[in-house]
Amino acid sequence: MATERGAGGGRLGGVFTPVLTPFGADLAPDPRRFVRLCRWLLDHGCAGLAPFGTTSEANSLAVGEREALLDALLAEGIPAGRLLPGTGCCALPDSVRLTAHAVRRGCAGVLMLPPFYYKGVSDDGLYRGFAEVIERVGDDRLRVYLYHIPPVAQVGIGPKLVERLRAAYPRAIAGMKDSSGDFANTRTMLDLFARDGFDVFVGSERFLLENLRAGGVGCITATGNVNAPAIDRLYAGWRGPDADRLQEEVNGLRGLIEKLPVIAALKAVVAHEAGDPGWATVRPPLVPLPEDRRGPLLAELRARGFAMPGLAG
Amino acid sequence: MATERGAGGGRLGGVFTPVLTPFGADLAPDPRRFVRLCRWLLDHGCAGLAPFGTTSEANSLAVGEREALLDALLAEGIPAGRLLPGTGCCALPDSVRLTAHAVRRGCAGVLMLPPFYYKGVSDDGLYRGFAEVIERVGDDRLRVYLYHIPPVAQVGIGPKLVERLRAAYPRAIAGMKDSSGDFANTRTMLDLFARDGFDVFVGSERFLLENLRAGGVGCITATGNVNAPAIDRLYAGWRGPDADRLQEEVNGLRGLIEKLPVIAALKAVVAHEAGDPGWATVRPPLVPLPEDRRGPLLAELRARGFAMPGLAG
Repeated sequence: MATERGAGGGRLGGVFTPVLTPFGADLAPDPRRFVRLCRWLLDHGCAGLAPFGTTSEANSLAVGEREALLDALLAEGIPAGRLLPGTGCCALPDSVRLTAHAVRRGCAGVLMLPPFYYKGVSDDGLYRGFAEVIERVGDDRLRVYLYHIPPVAQVGIGPKLVERLRAAYPRAIAGMKDSSGDFANTRTMLDLFARDGFDVFVGSERFLLENLRAGGVGCITATGNVNAPAIDRLYAGWRGPDADRLQEEVNGLRGLIEKLPVIAALKAVVAHEAGDPGWATVRPPLVPLPEDRRGPLLAELRARGFAMPGLAG
Repeated sequence: MATERGAGGGRLGGVFTPVLTPFGADLAPDPRRFVRLCRWLLDHGCAGLAPFGTTSEANSLAVGEREALLDALLAEGIPAGRLLPGTGCCALPDSVRLTAHAVRRGCAGVLMLPPFYYKGVSDDGLYRGFAEVIERVGDDRLRVYLYHIPPVAQVGIGPKLVERLRAAYPRAIAGMKDSSGDFANTRTMLDLFARDGFDVFVGSERFLLENLRAGGVGCITATGNVNAPAIDRLYAGWRGPDADRLQEEVNGLRGLIEKLPVIAALKAVVAHEAGDPGWATVRPPLVPLPEDRRGPLLAELRARGFAMPGLAG
């Protein structure tokens, strides 16, 4: 596990998990379940957490709900220095508000989507979007990790934009999460920026070994929600003789999850492991994993000896 | 111009404009300019207004900003019965809050995007999204116009989903805006649902005549912001001998705008016509129309005798 660092205190690395957001039957966020999973993850291999990512259904949450959930984590003793909350929204004032809140609370950094409603927008417009957030937050402690996830957001963050942002805000623009699913893109970013202290996380543990070997610092991965211990073993052992075997091992579980709707599948696994069926609840437009896919998934995991010991209450 | 109707009071039709949202130099919404343009539009051919559409940069506004702008319109005497505000967001609580606010204020209806962050979602999930909003708002006066704009939202609303929503909420699901840009899709919707009182607006005046001839009720169009009078002449004359000429006429101006970034171009035109350069301001990720495109656009409009009389202060 990589060392934790306080806000503005240094560089992050290791395994980060975009934590699933639990909902009650009324679809309200459930801070109690949320804190429990976060604590489990930090105790089982996660260097840090990236709440309010894509896997967290963050864009299905109101801004106030995100703030309340972050405050609930901190109130329960989850260290801010291990948190990298997602704060990028379509609306500038929302991104400013969430980013300022995270920085004021001492979070290690923020993971920032570009505004994603309008498609085919210019780098000028995206630059202006990120720059306005940084300027309006106006806090030297701010560390932004740019969140590139074109398969979902459609709006991407290319090397020219990164270069321009780095030039203008060398301290604030700390790194990125590359969820393009294309390691050639990650390599481009590493080749261009890693030597200057720009920290690249991959968005899937499938690319973790490759990323670390090429100068990246870790991964921020959906499947961390259930498989953080094994992914952290890979992180810890990446320079060792077992690295390729450890990579194969995490790929196996990833493959099981990836062939399903990922968020619903992960919630089904957590629900099972926590002995808490309510965990399976998702907000629309997502739907829970259908029973005919849930059963085989859980059976396959059982056959592999998969478990999340200590998660059940 | 189609007759206005109060909330729940009947059916809408005619030319509706997704009103541009003006911003100050600090990027804060400017209610004064907004009210002025809304009033001009209602006095110059618009049956109603659809504030907070795509053209309005609605998703670049915080929820509270949208509420405040709607309240500003009503406070200045813009009739609620001529308003069809956009209320569909990624987050269910935001859509519920905006929709409830619009209904409580007596708006004629709401224009509702599907939640648009996750791509490739199921009709089950989208159904559940719309159904939750309708159930949670829980007001018989609610009239939802489904907003299908796949080129931007990526997440679309197909006939099977409309059918299911109509079956469950025959009163609340009042119609749709089809911004697919594909009249074959509009025709499918008309053929399937128009006879049962489902009111279809096209998202561009290019399809207005075709839509009216096939049983549709009007258009909700970006270019209404500058060309509502001419589009309303087409609406008023669609059964007459000049209909095709009137359609050609509005197509001409549409063509000028469509070859440019539409929102920035419309704001440039309004800024010029209002004698108020501040109108050109857009929020990121959009950028203002570059000068080398603004000049030729305004020259071309001048050559055509285009004007918005009375808009300047």
